[in-house]
Amino acid sequence: MKFHTTGLLTAITWVGYTSAQHFKRLGACPKLGCVFPPDQVDFFPGQYFDIRLEVHAPVNGSEAFNGGVPDQQFSFCIQKGDGACEDVSTFFNMTSEPELETWSFSYYEDLFAQDADEPTLVNVASKAYRALSLDIPGHYTAKLSYYNGSETVAHWLVRESPKEAKAKNVLLFIGDGMTQAMITAARLLAHKSINGRYQSLMQMDQMEALGHQMTHSIDSFITDSANSATALYTGKKSSVNALNVFADSSANSLDDPKVESVAELFRRRTGGPIGMVSTAFIADATPAALCSHTRDRDQYPSIVYEYLFGASALNGSFTWPTGCEGPDVIFGGGAEQFIAGPGSPNGTDFYKVFQEKGYNVVYNNTELQATGNDEKTLGIFSISNMAKWLDRQVYPENLLNQANSPTGDGTDAVDQPGLKDLTLKAIDILQARADKQGTGWFMMSEAASIDKMMHVLDYDRALGELLELDDTIRATIAHLKKIGQDENTLIVVTADHGHGFDVFGGADTKYLAAQTSDRKKRAAVGVYQNSGLSGYTVEKDSSPLNNTVVIGAQGPNFPVTWDPRYAYAAGFAANPDHREGYAVNKSGPRLPAVEVETDILDNVVNPSDQPDGEYHAPTSVCPDADSFAGFVVNGTLSVDQPQGVHSLTDVSVFASGPGSEAFRGVYNSIDIFFKIADALGLAADASDCDSD
Amino acid sequence: MKFHTTGLLTAITWVGYTSAQHFKRLGACPKLGCVFPPDQVDFFPGQYFDIRLEVHAPVNGSEAFNGGVPDQQFSFCIQKGDGACEDVSTFFNMTSEPELETWSFSYYEDLFAQDADEPTLVNVASKAYRALSLDIPGHYTAKLSYYNGSETVAHWLVRESPKEAKAKNVLLFIGDGMTQAMITAARLLAHKSINGRYQSLMQMDQMEALGHQMTHSIDSFITDSANSATALYTGKKSSVNALNVFADSSANSLDDPKVESVAELFRRRTGGPIGMVSTAFIADATPAALCSHTRDRDQYPSIVYEYLFGASALNGSFTWPTGCEGPDVIFGGGAEQFIAGPGSPNGTDFYKVFQEKGYNVVYNNTELQATGNDEKTLGIFSISNMAKWLDRQVYPENLLNQANSPTGDGTDAVDQPGLKDLTLKAIDILQARADKQGTGWFMMSEAASIDKMMHVLDYDRALGELLELDDTIRATIAHLKKIGQDENTLIVVTADHGHGFDVFGGADTKYLAAQTSDRKKRAAVGVYQNSGLSGYTVEKDSSPLNNTVVIGAQGPNFPVTWDPRYAYAAGFAANPDHREGYAVNKSGPRLPAVEVETDILDNVVNPSDQPDGEYHAPTSVCPDADSFAGFVVNGTLSVDQPQGVHSLTDVSVFASGPGSEAFRGVYNSIDIFFKIADALGLAADASDCDSD
Repeated sequence: MKFHTTGLLTAITWVGYTSAQHFKRLGACPKLGCVFPPDQVDFFPGQYFDIRLEVHAPVNGSEAFNGGVPDQQFSFCIQKGDGACEDVSTFFNMTSEPELETWSFSYYEDLFAQDADEPTLVNVASKAYRALSLDIPGHYTAKLSYYNGSETVAHWLVRESPKEAKAKNVLLFIGDGMTQAMITAARLLAHKSINGRYQSLMQMDQMEALGHQMTHSIDSFITDSANSATALYTGKKSSVNALNVFADSSANSLDDPKVESVAELFRRRTGGPIGMVSTAFIADATPAALCSHTRDRDQYPSIVYEYLFGASALNGSFTWPTGCEGPDVIFGGGAEQFIAGPGSPNGTDFYKVFQEKGYNVVYNNTELQATGNDEKTLGIFSISNMAKWLDRQVYPENLLNQANSPTGDGTDAVDQPGLKDLTLKAIDILQARADKQGTGWFMMSEAASIDKMMHVLDYDRALGELLELDDTIRATIAHLKKIGQDENTLIVVTADHGHGFDVFGGADTKYLAAQTSDRKKRAAVGVYQNSGLSGYTVEKDSSPLNNTVVIGAQGPNFPVTWDPRYAYAAGFAANPDHREGYAVNKSGPRLPAVEVETDILDNVVNPSDQPDGEYHAPTSVCPDADSFAGFVVNGTLSVDQPQGVHSLTDVSVFASGPGSEAFRGVYNSIDIFFKIADALGLAADASDCDSD
Repeated sequence: MKFHTTGLLTAITWVGYTSAQHFKRLGACPKLGCVFPPDQVDFFPGQYFDIRLEVHAPVNGSEAFNGGVPDQQFSFCIQKGDGACEDVSTFFNMTSEPELETWSFSYYEDLFAQDADEPTLVNVASKAYRALSLDIPGHYTAKLSYYNGSETVAHWLVRESPKEAKAKNVLLFIGDGMTQAMITAARLLAHKSINGRYQSLMQMDQMEALGHQMTHSIDSFITDSANSATALYTGKKSSVNALNVFADSSANSLDDPKVESVAELFRRRTGGPIGMVSTAFIADATPAALCSHTRDRDQYPSIVYEYLFGASALNGSFTWPTGCEGPDVIFGGGAEQFIAGPGSPNGTDFYKVFQEKGYNVVYNNTELQATGNDEKTLGIFSISNMAKWLDRQVYPENLLNQANSPTGDGTDAVDQPGLKDLTLKAIDILQARADKQGTGWFMMSEAASIDKMMHVLDYDRALGELLELDDTIRATIAHLKKIGQDENTLIVVTADHGHGFDVFGGADTKYLAAQTSDRKKRAAVGVYQNSGLSGYTVEKDSSPLNNTVVIGAQGPNFPVTWDPRYAYAAGFAANPDHREGYAVNKSGPRLPAVEVETDILDNVVNPSDQPDGEYHAPTSVCPDADSFAGFVVNGTLSVDQPQGVHSLTDVSVFASGPGSEAFRGVYNSIDIFFKIADALGLAADASDCDSD
């Protein structure tokens, strides 16, 4: 809905303003005049970005102003250091001024307003300036003037960056949702301890540098994977659901002000090959943020379209001079964006489009291993997210009857590679292509289902994914040594956010199942001295004379068994209603809560979710708790949430290889981008540029 | 109960053995022959330790053996490297062999056995060798031979250590129970963020070195504060409740095999002054482990007795040649161990005993600040644990009507110092005394109530304690600079274990209180984009034009307010039954659950625990949930647990000053001891010694 006005504007006093509400008019815009990129943004020298200016006039609500008429006569200037503030057109030598845009949007000021369905309407006047960059390091001040004397000031910094590269290649591993508590739990499961001393360690434990990064969003303290990936890849905090854009208030999710990602920058500066590897569907936020730009992470068809053709092709009216230009390796799930149909770009066979652009396309692990290393390669191995390590390696029968073949032929995707297969093959392709061009390479490899399984409270599956990630890092280091690239390659391992999760004791699953009341079942959990020792690394028939390390059934860095009688007991900082029995879910990922028909969206304990499948079948959605192995835990989340949620905790960063020392200490998520770009030496040569 | 036998023993085959159970025969003894120190123990050169050998004969149960007759003819030898295994008496040049001891003990093999009251009886034959040390670095093998061919082997390592000290002084801060998730939450509360960028940081964020340590116990994966402090101070993993001993199976908790702590070692090697500072009662585990040795951390009178007189004085039959010899500074709570009465050693006035040993004794902050720096000083500021920062600084009325004066006169301890007061004064005393002797100093300063408040789910109070710790570290660094000791002093900050805790969203406390059903109250919690921004750093009437950092009401590193309408929403991995409303508890620490009279020990929601005190008073122990501000959360812990419990997660280590680089990376809790002892250069001079 567009809004037009020509009314005169008068000076004003501000209405009272309550900060920190859940429901904000517009995330990174605390005033009525908005500048994007907002205050406190740092740029890498030469990194492309758009500017969006907005002036708001709330029609009603606590900030109602000027009769709902936004100032269209706003002005905007930029100054470098202590210099004069030059009009933006002059500063950037623009030949034309963008058109004024107007629109309106509405929001609820709080939950009471939402319950009463009393939205606040805001009218907006706006301009956008596209595809700019600041090449010269230093402080910049951007000032939006509006409403006859009001000002919104944004302090920007273009950081200094070394011109010399420390690393030729960068491999960024992301354990989605992985916290230190999860790494600790995974170590307990997979590594044998004797008298409190681990006999082997996680590969992450042994990296050269340890750091912590803060994951919060620009306008809320809990992040999702889209805006956290944006922070890691662009050095810019953004909003939940936003990929490489700052969130504006317009309805069009493709017109929000964009920023350039490290993958785009690497491609533009070096021409070197790019790898995108994930166990999620490949249009999911963490891989998507390498190469796409949208306010709405759910626009999967446009996201994969942008992988090949860039942002300008998506929406020709907004110039964007850079892009991934078809990543050299794209490996993951998500065939629904490639099989001709409702999920693919314009309903086309998007495999065919990739083939036409010169890609090898592979659909299973056998084909993956057999394909050459010289061509760009698209590997799509399932519809939706790929199979979990625990199902592939321990309970393979769960891969059957999924009808998830990436070809769309309705068969099961049973020959799926794991993260290690994907990553090692990706290295070989990237290295072959980089050798041909005389460049390095950049890859992101994501263990996506740590997060996805924590969401459904399936911590065993999540920790299986985490152990697979650790095993992949170990194999990667060995492989890089083998091909002589270990001294050229910076490896960074981190997460994008956490889930509130920790192990607090040990559970006697046999005793728990034998009890007939929920309160008695809780006595099965031992704490402190009764938490016991890990039963996951011990052969079931071992004797007191056997005090040696037992090699895991699925390799040396995995548990021997996933269903010991004495399981670890873990819990979440927040959860939906669910049932807990602490035994591994042998029949596939959990679904802890299900929706029931009421007047509101209401999720209750899933009657089919029995942590130990050997017990009584449910008979209704309100089952007798006594007939189940687990006991009922009522939720703490809003009942409209069927899953667990992300958490605030800082996450760990582990790094090895050239440039890894920069990853020590405590810093913000955005610093990861700068550290990687510094290591790769991607800074613009300021002498070649004329930024102002 | 003593047990005697002279029966002949025959060779055996082992019965089946299930590892990882909750209920173990004896922690670090997986076989029927036990060696303490057990397999995998490392020593610092010259560090004193006892040896305890046990041979077990279970009378019944799954390990029943030899008709319940233990082998009394066991032998024990030690070899260095590849040398011959010499009998222990020869190896240590002993003039006499210790007496054989015998006893019996019983335990339950699992929860079914406990429910049925079917204990397993074990008869034991044992010897103990006291006050030994190994001065020469290298590998040692200790072998216990028993039952005509069975063997229990312990591999010991005496680590290499530099002779040169890097640091003159060491200040070890322990945030009891402090995880990275808590540090992240505290940062959110106390430090203002603009557009996702913190305008100030925690002091911990800015330390020179970041590490992680693993906290697990020797015989269970969840630790308590006693055995984790033992690990940090002696470099030895031990059992829950054990202070500087390995847990043997005898009934006497003072005869368990001891190890020397870093405080004792520092005193013995350098003669320098020792400081013990805690906001807990001073006989609590974390301070106690500096200077006492017992299997049972609850023996408070004997613990404080040992502070002054050492372990040999406690129990003259067990030689222990070392001790703290009266720490130069003892500051904390716990007057009940000093006021003549049931809690004090032998019922004496123990203040008087300290005075007789030359101590200044102070009872409040005014006296603390006024006292000189030259004498040993005992400062006891309350009965039980000291007041919490939130009560001292924000809700001081909660200090009234406590009758907790340290003098025992029944008045209130209202003039209590905070951790910063305690620590800075302790530094001045230690420095003055060290200067006089020409030595350095060693201090441990504990923020004890991070843990104590997390136990009762009072996360606001816990985070107040954490912020006070951070503020103390900041002030300490400044003070050390001021007195010219910053380049002499290694500061190490860590925790002893975690609590499963994280922030997952923001709660609209006004909306929550206004809802009339538990399920609707849960809708007050916003997640992701609806988690909001911290309201703790914002003045309540700030306007959209006010975008500047607001200084905290209690100083720049604390929140402006503790009760914003939009509070953070946090939860625990495990909890007792309780009610949750996310508002600060203004009337004092929470008591989340209370015991009800049933046939078992059963804890239920405390009807008086209303996170926001402004709402309806409870009328019964089974209240109508709708009449309270919070909603009921059923527990996941055994119903005999009235509190939250510790968790598994690795905890962070921060260090600055000389030697701090050694604290980078990932390691075990025991390594903290070795790193500190290395930094202080406490290694024995092997050339002066004759260890074997």
